[in-house]
Amino acid sequence: MNQDYIKPDNWSIIEEDFDVERVKSSESLFSIGNGAMGQRANFEENYSGPTFQGSYIAGIYYPDKTKVGWWKNGYPKYFAKVLNAPNWIGINIAINGENFDLFTCTEVKNFKRELNMKEGWYNRSFEATLVNGTAIAVNVRRFLSLNLDEAGVINYEITPLNKDAKIVYQPYIDAGVTNEDTNWEEKFWEPLEVKKATNEAFVTAQTFKTHFKVTTFMHNTILINGVPSQISASSVESTTDKVQYTYETLVAKGEVSAIQKIGGYTVSLNHDNTQAAAEKVIQGAVAKGYDALLQEQIEAWAKIWEMSDITIAGDVKAQQGIRFNIFQLNQTYLGKDSRLNIGPKGFTGEKYGGSTYWDTEAYCIPFYMATKDQEVARNLLTYRYNQLDKAIENAKDNLGFKNGAALYPMVTMNGEECHNEWEITHEEIHRNGAIAFAIYNYYRYTGDYSYIPEKGLEVLIGIARFWHQRASFSTHKNQYMILGVTGPNEYENNINNNFYTNYIAKWCIDYAYEQIQKVATEYPSDHKRVIEKVNLADAELQDWKKVSGNMYFPKSEELGIYLQQDGFLDKDLVPVKDLDRSQRPINQKWSWDRVLRSPYIKQADVLQGFYFFEDDFTTEELRKNFEFYESFTVHESSLSPCVHSIQAAKLDKMDMAYAFYLRTSRLDLDDYNKEVEEGCHITSMAGTWMSIVEGFGGMRVKDNALHFAPKIPKEWEGYSFKINFRHQILKMEVTHNETKFSLEGDKALTVFVNGKEVVVQPN
Amino acid sequence: MNQDYIKPDNWSIIEEDFDVERVKSSESLFSIGNGAMGQRANFEENYSGPTFQGSYIAGIYYPDKTKVGWWKNGYPKYFAKVLNAPNWIGINIAINGENFDLFTCTEVKNFKRELNMKEGWYNRSFEATLVNGTAIAVNVRRFLSLNLDEAGVINYEITPLNKDAKIVYQPYIDAGVTNEDTNWEEKFWEPLEVKKATNEAFVTAQTFKTHFKVTTFMHNTILINGVPSQISASSVESTTDKVQYTYETLVAKGEVSAIQKIGGYTVSLNHDNTQAAAEKVIQGAVAKGYDALLQEQIEAWAKIWEMSDITIAGDVKAQQGIRFNIFQLNQTYLGKDSRLNIGPKGFTGEKYGGSTYWDTEAYCIPFYMATKDQEVARNLLTYRYNQLDKAIENAKDNLGFKNGAALYPMVTMNGEECHNEWEITHEEIHRNGAIAFAIYNYYRYTGDYSYIPEKGLEVLIGIARFWHQRASFSTHKNQYMILGVTGPNEYENNINNNFYTNYIAKWCIDYAYEQIQKVATEYPSDHKRVIEKVNLADAELQDWKKVSGNMYFPKSEELGIYLQQDGFLDKDLVPVKDLDRSQRPINQKWSWDRVLRSPYIKQADVLQGFYFFEDDFTTEELRKNFEFYESFTVHESSLSPCVHSIQAAKLDKMDMAYAFYLRTSRLDLDDYNKEVEEGCHITSMAGTWMSIVEGFGGMRVKDNALHFAPKIPKEWEGYSFKINFRHQILKMEVTHNETKFSLEGDKALTVFVNGKEVVVQPN
Repeated sequence: MNQDYIKPDNWSIIEEDFDVERVKSSESLFSIGNGAMGQRANFEENYSGPTFQGSYIAGIYYPDKTKVGWWKNGYPKYFAKVLNAPNWIGINIAINGENFDLFTCTEVKNFKRELNMKEGWYNRSFEATLVNGTAIAVNVRRFLSLNLDEAGVINYEITPLNKDAKIVYQPYIDAGVTNEDTNWEEKFWEPLEVKKATNEAFVTAQTFKTHFKVTTFMHNTILINGVPSQISASSVESTTDKVQYTYETLVAKGEVSAIQKIGGYTVSLNHDNTQAAAEKVIQGAVAKGYDALLQEQIEAWAKIWEMSDITIAGDVKAQQGIRFNIFQLNQTYLGKDSRLNIGPKGFTGEKYGGSTYWDTEAYCIPFYMATKDQEVARNLLTYRYNQLDKAIENAKDNLGFKNGAALYPMVTMNGEECHNEWEITHEEIHRNGAIAFAIYNYYRYTGDYSYIPEKGLEVLIGIARFWHQRASFSTHKNQYMILGVTGPNEYENNINNNFYTNYIAKWCIDYAYEQIQKVATEYPSDHKRVIEKVNLADAELQDWKKVSGNMYFPKSEELGIYLQQDGFLDKDLVPVKDLDRSQRPINQKWSWDRVLRSPYIKQADVLQGFYFFEDDFTTEELRKNFEFYESFTVHESSLSPCVHSIQAAKLDKMDMAYAFYLRTSRLDLDDYNKEVEEGCHITSMAGTWMSIVEGFGGMRVKDNALHFAPKIPKEWEGYSFKINFRHQILKMEVTHNETKFSLEGDKALTVFVNGKEVVVQPN
Repeated sequence: MNQDYIKPDNWSIIEEDFDVERVKSSESLFSIGNGAMGQRANFEENYSGPTFQGSYIAGIYYPDKTKVGWWKNGYPKYFAKVLNAPNWIGINIAINGENFDLFTCTEVKNFKRELNMKEGWYNRSFEATLVNGTAIAVNVRRFLSLNLDEAGVINYEITPLNKDAKIVYQPYIDAGVTNEDTNWEEKFWEPLEVKKATNEAFVTAQTFKTHFKVTTFMHNTILINGVPSQISASSVESTTDKVQYTYETLVAKGEVSAIQKIGGYTVSLNHDNTQAAAEKVIQGAVAKGYDALLQEQIEAWAKIWEMSDITIAGDVKAQQGIRFNIFQLNQTYLGKDSRLNIGPKGFTGEKYGGSTYWDTEAYCIPFYMATKDQEVARNLLTYRYNQLDKAIENAKDNLGFKNGAALYPMVTMNGEECHNEWEITHEEIHRNGAIAFAIYNYYRYTGDYSYIPEKGLEVLIGIARFWHQRASFSTHKNQYMILGVTGPNEYENNINNNFYTNYIAKWCIDYAYEQIQKVATEYPSDHKRVIEKVNLADAELQDWKKVSGNMYFPKSEELGIYLQQDGFLDKDLVPVKDLDRSQRPINQKWSWDRVLRSPYIKQADVLQGFYFFEDDFTTEELRKNFEFYESFTVHESSLSPCVHSIQAAKLDKMDMAYAFYLRTSRLDLDDYNKEVEEGCHITSMAGTWMSIVEGFGGMRVKDNALHFAPKIPKEWEGYSFKINFRHQILKMEVTHNETKFSLEGDKALTVFVNGKEVVVQPN
């Protein structure tokens, strides 16, 4: 049974009733972020129950020692991990001399958490009775400003309910933090300087090894009944990495005492003088004040929703699900900075310590292309362009490639490989294909070819060189093969001729070849610059084509399907429906060898190829392959159901499409995989968006035009979404009776609905 | 270039000249052992240069925390490792007030190490000049008594050469030791008690977690000019885990001062009261005295050599090589104790921390059967019988098997799996086959069937059950397959239908089935006992036969070879001779994925199957498979050249057979793999013995008789060996002109030479 404590609501994530067993799960689900930083929904006050503390700053990482059982040549020297950042939210509280801690209160009632996705804030309220008998009502609101993205704000209100109370607030900032997953009990933060001023404080620390300097700051205001008071700190305690102020208030029963804390980080990625920058951020925030900051927040989120909202009528759980996904994606990445990327857990946890996976290119880019300005997707592409040299180094130094062949890392923060399982790091090489595909996809969607001559071509060449060298010739079959890989289905390792990998490898070579020709013709000076830089001779190009022109694809003529890999049909092909429920999830129940030799598929693999290259196959081919592979797919990856949802919709299997949609959109809210405590599955949330837009909406881009094939699950009354297609904003609304388009723009847009031309006039 | 500093000698391993770069290598090569304990050839006196300290006690291990990069289900909870034992050899020495340390001496000359294999002692002699100008001559002899196998003896003589000298000896025992490969900087030894008596001392310590109690002891005697003196310790220092005595001698120039130190261990595996046992060992040893102990040692080794020596005339390097191998095997394991086994490094190093690998069954048992009483091999079989319950647990708890299926661990000390690489631990399952094969081999060689009804049958059933469950049915090919394995060639992982694995799996089932029938007929009460115990129904037996009767073996009709695995022919088949030398050894030069997709074979794999089951194939089949696979074999395992040597001899490729023989017999002496510092390759030494007896001698057992096919490398004048065949001792002497047999025994023995019957009369 999945969890179901989150209350259905169109715009908010709501939890009622306090349950210590759910604290870590809610810390993940109620996480907040603003693209530059983010944090789990940890309590501000001290909490002695089970909790997973986490606060993260985009782009700040640490190269931890690689932990291995048995070293293999080619493993990276270190493992870059997302770092738990200094704590700025902490406020220790004492009520009538007793430390306030929800875990030890004798009673907690009317507990409610609300993550208001429409307005971008997180609120927690409850009534609690302490051991000393004092009962209080608490309301805390917290948000990370989208406009001032180095600052967050907390408004922490306490009302004594049954007696007058002495309420002591001890707000602090603390760089003495560590990670949950510390490897060698190492310290990551080196304290540099502590600075104190009236009601505000600064702790500057830097990461060991990477030397990212971060100033963590706070500014505190005490309010009585909503009015700022002149109470100043009665004491100040500080160490080398922590500052804590003490404010004492005497509050009559029924009156409201509050502390407003502004806090956050300024980092050396953005400022030479982080201390001065922090002072400036505080000045700006204090000048505006809490109410204005909150109002700005609401407006900033309104702007995001204006473009990216998807409405679903008649199904509040589905509505809540999609909005949660869209909200989290926007909390994680806003596309302002090409040094950043989208970690699988975003700012909600530490897992998958590195930040960037192929998830970005395979799943996230379509969402950002359609709901943001094209610069955002371009920044994501540029991130890889900027790391091309490291991808070439990775291929050369770790894996023995040559001549500019590039293998992008499986997991990375700065372009260097961070992961160290040979079956993943060395063999899950299909990731390279997604990176090339994203370049094609960007051009296809935005129509902006300029990226290719400027930057993309070099990436495409490095990737094509990799595939050319990685393929080997089988004299036996007289074809080129790719041996010893792990495909998207990580439940098979070291297999030969993974269909998806071979297909995308061939495609990468052919696409790179075509772009070289096109750039030669249309951008001759770029062509000259790039070809000289990468030292590419025509003979090499011809060698590439030999490989791509004679690539082997395993196939069963009898079944009419492509084989996931050479040996797939030799497996004991018991479909998932006949697998005992007690054996699932197989990755928790089975030893690895059993998983590997089973036919069970973690995530779309052959079908991922059909998803990327849909036009290369007939619908009948899709149907056969879908029906075959779906029956063996356990969807134990968060990235799996969305692709199956899209293809089920295409194949008119609407019940299946709807079930997959629910599974992907409420994966975290309902905790399908029993791991939401560790953080949310951010990158797969983009797949949820795809399963509506590309699945139910049937949106595709072909020949420079948008195509739709609208469908609607029987459970829904209607749905709508907007997309930004080549600088025009098109809205599609689908009900059981009709499909409507509206357009923001200057000129008419021709789209195709189920193959028929429709001209949409601007509003 | 391999090392060549070891002087060729028929009976000794000799090093001349002191070279600090060679100290660790020589510490391995000059190791001594007596089956119960052993030690690297560390200096007794303090040495500040690079050294690898190691002293080991048979059966004493520690369950270290498993170190992993990424945890996989099915990994064992801990990693059992051989422990560095307390030091009993240490003697700090001061000469005229200066600490004597070979690393800091101003001159060292006439340095010589000799490991006298004939007599079983290790001697070190040299002249050294200290910084203070005192020149001394030193002669140290050390041996571990075969008769009193808890004791070792050191005779350390010093002669001042250029002036009178005050010589201070500080013999000590010290349990404050650690391993080279400590994982988590943990302590392994907990000191319990220190006891001191006149000239003797005891430190009792126990291992953490496993609680093996060990009393380490010493007894010291000072001699002047060979005469025991009454000098007693001038001071005694002790801590909780160390005792050190100080003896001061004043020695005139040219006179000889000496310390004789008796030391060793008594362990709780053998004694309830280890302290009392240690006192008794000292009494016994002191009563005999140094000279008598040495004489006994010479006699005990003479007895071993009487049976196990192999002579080679006309090739001193080959002679030295084979004797080194035979000597080390006897130092490591003497077969007295079925709780012990043969670690890959014996007592010469820590690597491969667990003790028992499939090496024992696949390589070592033939040597012990032929050169010892059959009880020795029976003890090695019993070791596995005693661990059957743990093998069943391992299959069940770690890997999800059921119904008494047994998977023996890849690496073990006590029957539990210690290794944690999925591709080895979970997939290198062929090890199970060798354990069954050894039972067959023991019966074939000794004619002692009693082991099977008594113990072997249960093991065979557990193993057959494993293979039955592990095979899966391919509807596609309508045959049973074994998917996802690593064969003996560890340079391929997670492959399908490894010929060797499939073949031995089928054989195991068939052999178990036959033995069940035979025991039913000939030992009905044992049959009843066993079948009831393991709860084996006839229906299950019929299921087994379905699998063994329809097992798939990959084959190339075109090439006339069995395929190492399904995909082997798809590889880029560049033979080793065309591989650039700079790329070797590939396991040091290449990333793991490149190794895996290459055609290069670490050790005999298909050919290992041909070795075990030679009679199942024609010589022509052997030739085709040998020629094909030899061309891709890099022999980067020490276990590889011996099998190729035997098969090359059979195929009349004598130059090749000889080259492989030299490579296996001098692997450590010449340090082919550049790793002898870490210890010697003990288990592969049995392969060296096989390459003479089974390779050149062509010895096989068929139909209860010995067969020979004598061949001789052109480099040799002659060779001879003895074997104990069913309680008769047969000696074979081969020269270029003739083959002679002689027999110790009561009755004539019929053997076959090149297929012709020869009746050998007793001497």
